[in-house]
Amino acid sequence: MSEPPSELIPEQGWHCVHLFYRIEFGQWQLLTSDEQREAKTRLSAIVQEVRALASTQLLTLSVVTPKADLGFMLITPDLHTANRIEKQLGLALGADVLVPVYSYLSLTEESEYRTTSEDYAATLEREQKLQRSSTEFEQAMATFEERMKHYRHERMYPTLPDWPVVCFYNMSKRRGEQHNWYSLPFEERRKLMLGHGAVGRQYAGKVKQLITGSTGLDDAEWGVTLFARDSFQIKSIVYEMRFDPVSADYGEFGEFYIGLQLPLDELFRRLQL
Amino acid sequence: MSEPPSELIPEQGWHCVHLFYRIEFGQWQLLTSDEQREAKTRLSAIVQEVRALASTQLLTLSVVTPKADLGFMLITPDLHTANRIEKQLGLALGADVLVPVYSYLSLTEESEYRTTSEDYAATLEREQKLQRSSTEFEQAMATFEERMKHYRHERMYPTLPDWPVVCFYNMSKRRGEQHNWYSLPFEERRKLMLGHGAVGRQYAGKVKQLITGSTGLDDAEWGVTLFARDSFQIKSIVYEMRFDPVSADYGEFGEFYIGLQLPLDELFRRLQL
Amino acid sequence: MSEPPSELIPEQGWHCVHLFYRIEFGQWQLLTSDEQREAKTRLSAIVQEVRALASTQLLTLSVVTPKADLGFMLITPDLHTANRIEKQLGLALGADVLVPVYSYLSLTEESEYRTTSEDYAATLEREQKLQRSSTEFEQAMATFEERMKHYRHERMYPTLPDWPVVCFYNMSKRRGEQHNWYSLPFEERRKLMLGHGAVGRQYAGKVKQLITGSTGLDDAEWGVTLFARDSFQIKSIVYEMRFDPVSADYGEFGEFYIGLQLPLDELFRRLQL
Amino acid sequence: MSEPPSELIPEQGWHCVHLFYRIEFGQWQLLTSDEQREAKTRLSAIVQEVRALASTQLLTLSVVTPKADLGFMLITPDLHTANRIEKQLGLALGADVLVPVYSYLSLTEESEYRTTSEDYAATLEREQKLQRSSTEFEQAMATFEERMKHYRHERMYPTLPDWPVVCFYNMSKRRGEQHNWYSLPFEERRKLMLGHGAVGRQYAGKVKQLITGSTGLDDAEWGVTLFARDSFQIKSIVYEMRFDPVSADYGEFGEFYIGLQLPLDELFRRLQL
Amino acid sequence: MSEPPSELIPEQGWHCVHLFYRIEFGQWQLLTSDEQREAKTRLSAIVQEVRALASTQLLTLSVVTPKADLGFMLITPDLHTANRIEKQLGLALGADVLVPVYSYLSLTEESEYRTTSEDYAATLEREQKLQRSSTEFEQAMATFEERMKHYRHERMYPTLPDWPVVCFYNMSKRRGEQHNWYSLPFEERRKLMLGHGAVGRQYAGKVKQLITGSTGLDDAEWGVTLFARDSFQIKSIVYEMRFDPVSADYGEFGEFYIGLQLPLDELFRRLQL
Repeated sequence: MSEPPSELIPEQGWHCVHLFYRIEFGQWQLLTSDEQREAKTRLSAIVQEVRALASTQLLTLSVVTPKADLGFMLITPDLHTANRIEKQLGLALGADVLVPVYSYLSLTEESEYRTTSEDYAATLEREQKLQRSSTEFEQAMATFEERMKHYRHERMYPTLPDWPVVCFYNMSKRRGEQHNWYSLPFEERRKLMLGHGAVGRQYAGKVKQLITGSTGLDDAEWGVTLFARDSFQIKSIVYEMRFDPVSADYGEFGEFYIGLQLPLDELFRRLQL
Repeated sequence: MSEPPSELIPEQGWHCVHLFYRIEFGQWQLLTSDEQREAKTRLSAIVQEVRALASTQLLTLSVVTPKADLGFMLITPDLHTANRIEKQLGLALGADVLVPVYSYLSLTEESEYRTTSEDYAATLEREQKLQRSSTEFEQAMATFEERMKHYRHERMYPTLPDWPVVCFYNMSKRRGEQHNWYSLPFEERRKLMLGHGAVGRQYAGKVKQLITGSTGLDDAEWGVTLFARDSFQIKSIVYEMRFDPVSADYGEFGEFYIGLQLPLDELFRRLQL
Repeated sequence: MSEPPSELIPEQGWHCVHLFYRIEFGQWQLLTSDEQREAKTRLSAIVQEVRALASTQLLTLSVVTPKADLGFMLITPDLHTANRIEKQLGLALGADVLVPVYSYLSLTEESEYRTTSEDYAATLEREQKLQRSSTEFEQAMATFEERMKHYRHERMYPTLPDWPVVCFYNMSKRRGEQHNWYSLPFEERRKLMLGHGAVGRQYAGKVKQLITGSTGLDDAEWGVTLFARDSFQIKSIVYEMRFDPVSADYGEFGEFYIGLQLPLDELFRRLQL
Repeated sequence: MSEPPSELIPEQGWHCVHLFYRIEFGQWQLLTSDEQREAKTRLSAIVQEVRALASTQLLTLSVVTPKADLGFMLITPDLHTANRIEKQLGLALGADVLVPVYSYLSLTEESEYRTTSEDYAATLEREQKLQRSSTEFEQAMATFEERMKHYRHERMYPTLPDWPVVCFYNMSKRRGEQHNWYSLPFEERRKLMLGHGAVGRQYAGKVKQLITGSTGLDDAEWGVTLFARDSFQIKSIVYEMRFDPVSADYGEFGEFYIGLQLPLDELFRRLQL
Repeated sequence: MSEPPSELIPEQGWHCVHLFYRIEFGQWQLLTSDEQREAKTRLSAIVQEVRALASTQLLTLSVVTPKADLGFMLITPDLHTANRIEKQLGLALGADVLVPVYSYLSLTEESEYRTTSEDYAATLEREQKLQRSSTEFEQAMATFEERMKHYRHERMYPTLPDWPVVCFYNMSKRRGEQHNWYSLPFEERRKLMLGHGAVGRQYAGKVKQLITGSTGLDDAEWGVTLFARDSFQIKSIVYEMRFDPVSADYGEFGEFYIGLQLPLDELFRRLQL
């Protein structure tokens, strides 16, 4: 095994790594101002190189509240690459300057609970009274399928928006003695999830969400990343969804992190680096 | 994204940040007495500047028990401003002097469970036997509506009192297998909350409370800040409310922090800075 | 707010602060032996001054097991004073020498569940067959009322015994889905608590207990301090009480700390300071 | 209270202290090799002195996995002595070299659930068809009572075996909403415990167990120390007992620590001191 | 006890130790580059020596996400040897360079829930309509028994694959008030486990799993190590198994660690040592 490791591209999806660090300023101040400048240049260079990689995205965040200071969100296909990048980012500002406080590994994935073409066709018939064989019906179906295709593609191969407020938390489904998600039949889970999706669609244009899968990869079952232009929208959607039976009865949530997307130069100023 | 970040004013409410720090005295003592004086002047200057910002309030606290030493409570509309201030406060006394032990991010918000005008009109009719069309009835209704308007405004745009004892804790509503707040219908939740409010009103003039929303923003669903002139009143109201069905059956509480409002010079003496 | 803070005397009760510290010996050894001597003198002086304050008591403890090394238990009326003392104690041996590992804030309080005069009168009639109007009955009632008065006074204004073994833990009442203390009617809670008290009285002369209230002040609802001359008595009473329905069904307990009351000179030797 | 503290011998049982430390090698390496030799000599001397104390036993352990490095198990009657010894052991290798990671305080105690003479007599009659007044019956009873006396004495005044594998964990009995040990009548608890003991007896000669009581003294209700010559026996007995209704329905277990008894010189080599 | 400790070979199984370390780079950078080279050579030498030991395997891992940096998985029969190796590995790069963040001790073991020959014979009769005494029947049975023997041997004396993605987590069976694994009869547990195994077999060639027993040895009841060539397969199998009744109703899972098998030279580069 002495040759360089071969690629680790998953059969489906891209790897997603969330990284939250506290800055150890005592350590940072031991550096001369030249060393500090070099350190910032080194981090900037890594960020640029990473962003130049194929199918790779990297966000830089100023974290709100002292839970953490600096955050990154990385999406890249190869697991070796993801591993190499997160180790480089963690050391870029010098030894012990960035102290990890929280991280998360997940994979992009399609939802297994989808509105099927048959669901949609039935709705069309019922609500719009279109006849199955009519031209309007077929056009509506074509539009629907195009939209679903786009939606599925965006889940698996997302383009991260540049909206400033980024919220991350993990989520698992409850396996309680009475409410056990994993004991429900598929069709019941699908119905519950479709209702859940309806809440999400009310926030179209205000909140974009990315759900990534982490069962077996990290401590919870999914990672949730929300993007908004306004923290009030984050609060609203998460609060409203909590009344949805999927969350009310089955949702278990981890810690919440709020970061603000900032370009590196602004981030350095914000964090007094 | 290289221009300075534009404003992040939420559609509703102001941002609220609670900050609790332990003082690392070993680090503080590495500073010369000149450096210490400069550090205290720097913190004082930041506090003054922050207090001069529009719609912004900042409290300084000496925390009781070694859970923490120094606390801040900040209210300000813009999230970028909140982020910038908390990073500045944390570093003002020098690198590694203030070590964060707990923090909380929330947004001021109106309660969704309100006594409606119709509730109040019905009460007037029933209890005071006023006829709906009478002048007394209309005057009473006008007074009620004025009071509610003031109350709603104070929740959204509060003026923090200078009462010395400040208690902070977070709170979530239980989603248990039998008692699940988020599965109750709105009207039932509203009734439970109105009873809860009645306990609060008994402490008028003794305890002021500010409930801020944090679902999606921090680890619990609300932040609760209580102000009193006497710690006994804090104990009394929280104890009494625990028997209220909303708390008894549905309340989940985080850690409790007690701080004492002190002006900075007194605070420095108290904390031996 | 620039004048010195006025008093913070609670409407009812005295403040009670439990403090447990680990000694950071690496830091202690950086001091010269002169500095170490001064540090011990400083702590001794603070302890003496505190003990000279009105209505103030301060115990010094060697903590058993490395959970902690040094402990204090402070009772004093004014919250500003309590805050000032705990900050002074924590720094008395030098920066970073005492590292806080656990602390607790509470207020002395009367029990709300008391044997009433009517309870006692009924017992007298029933068990001793005394007639309500007889002289013996009235004498017995007078004795009872004197005893209750003394007992209530001792809960609110306790004199801490000098018994060597001190046990501290916190306690909350369960709010489970089936056993919820805060949903029980007062009379039912009172009955349960009277049975609990009966166990306590069997240890009269062996264990003294002080229950202080902390709802809203610290993370649990009560602090429990037990004093004994023998650790076996601590184990016995806590074990026996666990079978009492109040504890069996409703008790939730925090960490347990065992300290030994020692005078400061002996404490310094014990802890190798 | 300025005279040396008088003895703290419990009415029943000996004190038992389990101590687990991580070695801070960075700190150790700051010592010169002379200082290191002295440190090891000092620890050896303390161990020898402690072992020379009346009714006192002290085991030295190399802990498996980096959960900890060095462990001690101490049994001694007086609580002041126990406190003095654990503080000495913790500092013997120099300041900050031994960092406590876990400890436990308990008291040896007899089981309250015993096979009574009447139980045994009934079994003899039933299973062996011995008549109550016969000589064989009386001999069997005498043997039984001798065995029970020895067993009770060993629980209260144990002699720790030199078997190499030592397992320690704490244990409490569940007070769940449905399975609540402390709500069961004594006779039911006794029956459950006798079944539990039967599993233990199958491991006679392979596993020795010592159950010590810690209610009120430390965070759980009992400490369990298992001794074996082979880690497989530890796994087997704990696994098998988990199916016993006492454990299945009522057992709550803390962290598990595995140590290997080694003489100090071998221990120093194993831990690279 | 002054002679070297004798062997500690378990009656059944090999010891298995999982080790996860964070690298303390501040400490590493205090070493000169010569010292760093020596340190890496020392670690390489230990790894080689360990791999040369009889019946011993040692994997070296780069851990994904800053949960940890460097991981080892060790299998070796003797517990003294395991203890000696883990202490050596932890110090090989110098004092305080490798900081343990997680570890796990377990023993390889056979499953107690097996498809018996009788199960298989019944299946053959039923599904393939083979007569019990026929030659085909006997051949099929011989093949089955050979396969089971191989499978049992691999559980007890595994050969770890060189597949790059290694996932580790611990697992216990739930002892809830309603779903209590340890209260189920053996035959019911066996049926549940056979269904569980069926899911595993669908991933033949994609995921290899090793289940090791840790009841009494570490904090959970089993360790699970999964090997794959692709992280997607890890996510898929763990997610799919979560719907299996054994996991849905009875599984409790610890933290998940993902490591990548790398040869040491590549590992040093990946971790910037």
